Amino acid sequence: MTAAPALRVALVGHGFMGAAHSQAWRVAPRFFDLPLRPEPALLVGRHGAAESADRLGWAESSDDWREAVARDDIDVVDIVTPGDTHAEIAIAALEAGKHVLCEKPLANSIGEAERMASAAAAAQERGAIAMCGFTYRRVPAILEARRLVREGAIGEVREVRAQYLQDWLSDPAGPMTWRLDRAKAGSGSLGDIGAHIIDAAEFVAGDLIASVSGTLETYVRQRPVLAEQRGLGGVASDRFGEVTVDDAAWFTTRFASGAMGSFTATRYATGRKNALRLEVSGTRGALAFDLERLNELEFYDATEPADRLGFRRILATEPEHAFAANWWPTGHALGYEHAFSHQVVDFVTDIAERREPEPSFADALHVQRVLAAVEGSAEAGSAWAAV
Amino acid sequence: MTAAPALRVALVGHGFMGAAHSQAWRVAPRFFDLPLRPEPALLVGRHGAAESADRLGWAESSDDWREAVARDDIDVVDIVTPGDTHAEIAIAALEAGKHVLCEKPLANSIGEAERMASAAAAAQERGAIAMCGFTYRRVPAILEARRLVREGAIGEVREVRAQYLQDWLSDPAGPMTWRLDRAKAGSGSLGDIGAHIIDAAEFVAGDLIASVSGTLETYVRQRPVLAEQRGLGGVASDRFGEVTVDDAAWFTTRFASGAMGSFTATRYATGRKNALRLEVSGTRGALAFDLERLNELEFYDATEPADRLGFRRILATEPEHAFAANWWPTGHALGYEHAFSHQVVDFVTDIAERREPEPSFADALHVQRVLAAVEGSAEAGSAWAAV
Amino acid sequence: MTAAPALRVALVGHGFMGAAHSQAWRVAPRFFDLPLRPEPALLVGRHGAAESADRLGWAESSDDWREAVARDDIDVVDIVTPGDTHAEIAIAALEAGKHVLCEKPLANSIGEAERMASAAAAAQERGAIAMCGFTYRRVPAILEARRLVREGAIGEVREVRAQYLQDWLSDPAGPMTWRLDRAKAGSGSLGDIGAHIIDAAEFVAGDLIASVSGTLETYVRQRPVLAEQRGLGGVASDRFGEVTVDDAAWFTTRFASGAMGSFTATRYATGRKNALRLEVSGTRGALAFDLERLNELEFYDATEPADRLGFRRILATEPEHAFAANWWPTGHALGYEHAFSHQVVDFVTDIAERREPEPSFADALHVQRVLAAVEGSAEAGSAWAAV
Amino acid sequence: MTAAPALRVALVGHGFMGAAHSQAWRVAPRFFDLPLRPEPALLVGRHGAAESADRLGWAESSDDWREAVARDDIDVVDIVTPGDTHAEIAIAALEAGKHVLCEKPLANSIGEAERMASAAAAAQERGAIAMCGFTYRRVPAILEARRLVREGAIGEVREVRAQYLQDWLSDPAGPMTWRLDRAKAGSGSLGDIGAHIIDAAEFVAGDLIASVSGTLETYVRQRPVLAEQRGLGGVASDRFGEVTVDDAAWFTTRFASGAMGSFTATRYATGRKNALRLEVSGTRGALAFDLERLNELEFYDATEPADRLGFRRILATEPEHAFAANWWPTGHALGYEHAFSHQVVDFVTDIAERREPEPSFADALHVQRVLAAVEGSAEAGSAWAAV
Repeated sequence: MTAAPALRVALVGHGFMGAAHSQAWRVAPRFFDLPLRPEPALLVGRHGAAESADRLGWAESSDDWREAVARDDIDVVDIVTPGDTHAEIAIAALEAGKHVLCEKPLANSIGEAERMASAAAAAQERGAIAMCGFTYRRVPAILEARRLVREGAIGEVREVRAQYLQDWLSDPAGPMTWRLDRAKAGSGSLGDIGAHIIDAAEFVAGDLIASVSGTLETYVRQRPVLAEQRGLGGVASDRFGEVTVDDAAWFTTRFASGAMGSFTATRYATGRKNALRLEVSGTRGALAFDLERLNELEFYDATEPADRLGFRRILATEPEHAFAANWWPTGHALGYEHAFSHQVVDFVTDIAERREPEPSFADALHVQRVLAAVEGSAEAGSAWAAV
Repeated sequence: MTAAPALRVALVGHGFMGAAHSQAWRVAPRFFDLPLRPEPALLVGRHGAAESADRLGWAESSDDWREAVARDDIDVVDIVTPGDTHAEIAIAALEAGKHVLCEKPLANSIGEAERMASAAAAAQERGAIAMCGFTYRRVPAILEARRLVREGAIGEVREVRAQYLQDWLSDPAGPMTWRLDRAKAGSGSLGDIGAHIIDAAEFVAGDLIASVSGTLETYVRQRPVLAEQRGLGGVASDRFGEVTVDDAAWFTTRFASGAMGSFTATRYATGRKNALRLEVSGTRGALAFDLERLNELEFYDATEPADRLGFRRILATEPEHAFAANWWPTGHALGYEHAFSHQVVDFVTDIAERREPEPSFADALHVQRVLAAVEGSAEAGSAWAAV
Repeated sequence: MTAAPALRVALVGHGFMGAAHSQAWRVAPRFFDLPLRPEPALLVGRHGAAESADRLGWAESSDDWREAVARDDIDVVDIVTPGDTHAEIAIAALEAGKHVLCEKPLANSIGEAERMASAAAAAQERGAIAMCGFTYRRVPAILEARRLVREGAIGEVREVRAQYLQDWLSDPAGPMTWRLDRAKAGSGSLGDIGAHIIDAAEFVAGDLIASVSGTLETYVRQRPVLAEQRGLGGVASDRFGEVTVDDAAWFTTRFASGAMGSFTATRYATGRKNALRLEVSGTRGALAFDLERLNELEFYDATEPADRLGFRRILATEPEHAFAANWWPTGHALGYEHAFSHQVVDFVTDIAERREPEPSFADALHVQRVLAAVEGSAEAGSAWAAV
Repeated sequence: MTAAPALRVALVGHGFMGAAHSQAWRVAPRFFDLPLRPEPALLVGRHGAAESADRLGWAESSDDWREAVARDDIDVVDIVTPGDTHAEIAIAALEAGKHVLCEKPLANSIGEAERMASAAAAAQERGAIAMCGFTYRRVPAILEARRLVREGAIGEVREVRAQYLQDWLSDPAGPMTWRLDRAKAGSGSLGDIGAHIIDAAEFVAGDLIASVSGTLETYVRQRPVLAEQRGLGGVASDRFGEVTVDDAAWFTTRFASGAMGSFTATRYATGRKNALRLEVSGTRGALAFDLERLNELEFYDATEPADRLGFRRILATEPEHAFAANWWPTGHALGYEHAFSHQVVDFVTDIAERREPEPSFADALHVQRVLAAVEGSAEAGSAWAAV
């Protein structure tokens, strides 16, 4: 590990995603032979960065992301802040010659996302690369699904059924949060979890969504503001906040190939905690995945003898599955965070090889355009909208 | 059994559904104490009725349904012919004072369905009743789902996700059949299997769909005509037939209560043989059902302690489950056909009590209106359409 | 159906098994072309036979099984009485030239079972055949498992894991019944449900158990006698009855081939209602089955590419699966009772062809010997006992 | 994190378990507030320790475990070497005042294990603690199972069914390894994976096995020695090695409480990769667990209304589940390695509080005694043996 040249990383942001990325930067080099040796150099956060840096294992801290961009001894800027800050930081970092890893969604508007994709394209020519963190692409079972489609194991893709089901808003008495405020969050379930199923579906199917018909719904339009949100401590107050984002989103899609898709993103699927579900039906087989059982992939091979047909449960922990050989023996489960380590592996390798990453900012811009098309369609009474 | 007054039944039609109905008429009185004793009196079919009557256990046969309507010794006309014939037969039977059980979909057009519902309403006043055969309503697990919703076990219904997934068209080289010809079948996957999930969702949720946004798609527009279809034997020919119905349908719905629904009906879900799936999410719990495991109901009770939350797999074979006590001991599976026996039980009881059945023709007309609204929306570029 | 010669059947017994057999005799000829036409001629029961005959569809009734044996117009005697009566009735029937179908377990003692097998062998030479009702052999998924083993799809069988899990005794306050009285029931969970997993395991593996080491346990040695059992009505009494049979049985087995087996039969598996589970591991694959999902068979093919390995869920409702083509379309579930109809189909065909049935009385005697060996081993401190 | 006093750790061994323990020592302090701050100070290995230290993140390396014991600046000795070396290292470390974490099985013989337990008891009095690494105890779903039993949620435990199913020996042509050589490995599937289900069953049931009847089997007695094992490179040779350990083990057990258990440990369960399965049946409920889905626990509550009974799938990722709140949001899966981090959390806390850990060496000695009793019973023709 020490032999490889160092790659000095700055992480901008230190919430839940900051913890996940920190874990990945620390762990990946322990399990994978990387061409560059990541050094967790600098953690940036507006409040409490020093404490987080200590806890998450970063050498230094700062309260200004501009320091990460300005310092010559930083090679990578990893952005895990809310979406409304992505564009400014990412573009500045790319223009400063840094490699950039940016969490999804790429930005809160198409305009921002377009400028980011342009900056990434320009940077790529100068040798700095940019990746967007659609991390689920690097779950081994998802990668196996992608491989099976590519190898023709399910024939031509006909239909995609994708759902991202969560339930943390099921209780109408649950409190108001910034995530339900459009000004801050940009979007609700559509942008947060809908983005994931769009990317996952396109990735696995190897196809792009060309047009959509969408519907958005907000079931609960007012939620109680917790007193603590107004600095009064942890009890409920008599005030209510306006929910200005979508609670749930449904959209039907037409892919470039002519395949069709149906998508559901909701935070009201009572009992479903983190069920990103994907089913891809082809002319010769099918695939099914559920993030709640992320080590498993179901595969149906329609070319088997008629008495032996059935969805098989592949446990994607064999050495033949992507990334799996570097972890534990067969049958030993990986968790949520491992995909972040895989992301680091690929990102570092791409840096070393000056290769455009997948998903690139251009790929992420495409997802953004699908999201915008869904919103546009919903506003137009579900009329079909081109992406 | 012999003590009860006789109820003389005529069955019109003798295909797959004829076999299912025949089995139900024969079997129901063996397991349930019925107020009337069904007698399989007459089987009607245009070709081969005598042979079918012998095989399926009907005393007499005829090649003309008018005989069933005209005969004084027939009490019930059970209609399992293709949808384009339902209206004429059902209305004639009702006007002749017969009780009518009619397979779904009620008719091939709203106009026909409306006339049937009117005839049923008029007949009800004269003491003749009419039921539409949405048989899945009488699967014990579905009835348990309905009961749990009614009892408030999942709180207020917020969201319904319904799929009817089959795969018999997955292979694009599969042959043309009359089911793919709009002139004969009326509709494709929407009317055939979409109708089932509309009725099941409304029944379980205890709510009606008020408006829809829908999309229809036909993937394969030409299919080979088998030579045997032209009387030449069982080999493929060089001719192709035009597929004029939908292969798949997707629709988003708004229920009267404000709950939302998303529906998929497709014959291209490779590997899914008969997967009618229903998930209902409420403010205090959720339910999930899959017809491929029809003895099971999944129930999530959000009011349980936080460390004990989870979807439980109810095996709906306890004596406390609808109809189950009359069959086998706990844990002994029922099959597809049992719901038809349950339908007979309820229909016969309704006849004895002169009670309007569920689903009535009016209920079935409502389903028909939803189907028509989906088609209308699909033609209008998925614009929302009121039911 | 009418063209085939009649086969006049007498059923001796009219409890739960009587209902299942009656249903099979009535239903099988409606769905299968049989070489002989079964006629439900006579129902025998000591009490209430006339009423049962009416309800279950038998032409006549009697309170003496000797009538069934004596009458010339009876071809088949179907025995569903408790085990202690099997030998006398079956031997008399066979000696009178009747074909005999006898419920499992064949008898309550090895001696009786041996005499029955001898009588069956002698009868077979005279053209009368005898089958024992291990009905689960005729569940399509079990038959598919058998086929896959036979075809070498899992290679050489190494290991069998079999469980029959029920829970109706879990509650220690549950009442005493005759099934817990050795004098009446012969045995407890071992003979009742253990017999089923022995037969199913041997059938699927295509191998015989050669020796065993077993343990029996009775957890609750006294249970309250319900007052109604003493003719006082439906309330509990202050009396207790002695439980004199095993509550649960475990045994390890060596098969003739050298394969090993482990078996559990228990009525204390809380939450498991009727879970007959079988897993067979071979050198090239494996099979798994659970009666609570009786339409499904799991199959693992170890010769698939390493990244595509997994247990597949075969829905045994394809036309290629045994008996399935005669019922409903693909994906439409069969239930518990269908295996009884399949048993009738095979039994009637065997009669027409004068062919020795499977399982024969000799096969059932073997199961009896395994049960006796388990009991002997348990009494001898689990020392291995040859079958 | 920096505020806590340092705890300097030496790891002895650097195979697969060395990687798992290293990960845990590095990761645990990042996600949990520990009373002491672990420092990965010294890695010991006979060959290649320096390289492993670099890769796994240890400050120094050594080729002699005695260095770890002798150095004053080492507080903890963590032993992950093969079982035949445990006693010597652990006892020396404990006598030198080190805290000891020792992988399971505790030792290769009862005698060694007894001496280790004595050393641990003596050390405990001096303030040095000793834990044995039955890591699965710290899988959150297993901890939840333990809690539910303790809280009486399943009533009195009646029956345990435990299986550890792997399949890496299914192919009889697979090569010889040291794990199949009794002189090196001590035991086969019994000691390797059987030990895990013994500990897990006793832990969850809160009960100890008192006596056993066991059977061991070796299916394949000779396996090819790979040429590379003789230094000739990676191809097969014409030599065969003798397999001197058990391939599979089955044992029936009686617990101290009178509950019964049945256990299977096998490396021939084709298609099962790492299926540690546990089902515990009580008078009021039941629990089921499968390590291949380690985030899930199935719970059956027999006190629910009769129409709502069923095994529920608890996703053990709620903040209310042990350790879960410190990782990711609800529904985000943990992996195999997380239990090792939990083990570090508890071990470090126990050190800080001078508290005897669970499982202690005495607990592990008990498991060893069960293993020895199974072996003794197997040698004595499965006669029951007291533990």
